[in-house]
Amino acid sequence: MHEVLFKNIKTKVDLTEAEEQQLRNFFIPKRLRKKQYLLQDGDVCLYTAFVEKGLLRSYTIDEKGNEHIIQFALEDWWISDMFSFLTGEPSAYSIEALEDSELLLINRKAYDEMLIIVPKMERYLRILVQNSLIATQRRLSSKLSLSAEENYKNLIAACNNIIQRVPQHMIASFLGITPETLSRIRKQMATPK
Amino acid sequence: MHEVLFKNIKTKVDLTEAEEQQLRNFFIPKRLRKKQYLLQDGDVCLYTAFVEKGLLRSYTIDEKGNEHIIQFALEDWWISDMFSFLTGEPSAYSIEALEDSELLLINRKAYDEMLIIVPKMERYLRILVQNSLIATQRRLSSKLSLSAEENYKNLIAACNNIIQRVPQHMIASFLGITPETLSRIRKQMATPK
Repeated sequence: MHEVLFKNIKTKVDLTEAEEQQLRNFFIPKRLRKKQYLLQDGDVCLYTAFVEKGLLRSYTIDEKGNEHIIQFALEDWWISDMFSFLTGEPSAYSIEALEDSELLLINRKAYDEMLIIVPKMERYLRILVQNSLIATQRRLSSKLSLSAEENYKNLIAACNNIIQRVPQHMIASFLGITPETLSRIRKQMATPK
Repeated sequence: MHEVLFKNIKTKVDLTEAEEQQLRNFFIPKRLRKKQYLLQDGDVCLYTAFVEKGLLRSYTIDEKGNEHIIQFALEDWWISDMFSFLTGEPSAYSIEALEDSELLLINRKAYDEMLIIVPKMERYLRILVQNSLIATQRRLSSKLSLSAEENYKNLIAACNNIIQRVPQHMIASFLGITPETLSRIRKQMATPK
């Protein structure tokens, strides 16, 4: 079940057959049913997960009990709490399956070993993390400088496949607005001008 | 003038004398006076900059003319618009020196060559970008879930050296709040309870 992962890696670096075989050993296949957790806040994030199939979200809960969605991850995406994974500190995030999902997990020890045994994974991960950083910076900058309506339109343009598969209140939580505000924006956008 | 850069690199990977010599060739020293720009929005970000000395900020301006600060960069930090640098698209950000600064610049061609000629820089950059991603994710998550006062307290705890060197209205812009709100928070914090 490593096809999606290897295809993803090969968009960034070449892999020999031998390297594919070596990489296979570092990943543990894992199935999650909808609503099961990969990580619960307060626990240490032991795995970085590649999504072969399905959909997950990471989120944090504030003192008032409100959920704030940090990330969605579809097929062909990675998800984890990098801070907790790398430091061994408890995570402030939870990671939950929103659909039945098939994951490939790698733990910290295997992650470090993989980078020594297949050094070109340094390049793959550098490019991957670089792209994540760009996306996260743009989201932060949009959150600081754009209106809720503009942020919603950008999300439709960039990730319409996520919007189709996720309940509206989670889209609102991802945008950092109330479900009522999102509902108002959607009505305005649906009204012919 | 590469001392701070090499010290920074050596906290993450070992460098031989020969590699230091090779790396030197990829970087262009550049001085900026206070208020000079490394990048103006609408231009392509041609360089990624390492700060040997001084202080810079990157920011974006919204349609209403309000500035939103994306990042501060002190000595020993990197700054650029990674998206524009890697894609060659015009940048939405400006990067300005807030103090007289000494930089080491690397352009895209040299960046790619460096990764081929000194492959351990893949590892250095992977770790660097990974740490930036963690910091940016935490800032986004704080922005979504914490109050302005909590965000200001976290900034003091993490980056008091920046707060000491930057005008208050820029701290407010970084936090995504008005200068009046920041002033009110500071007064409340100064009042004995």
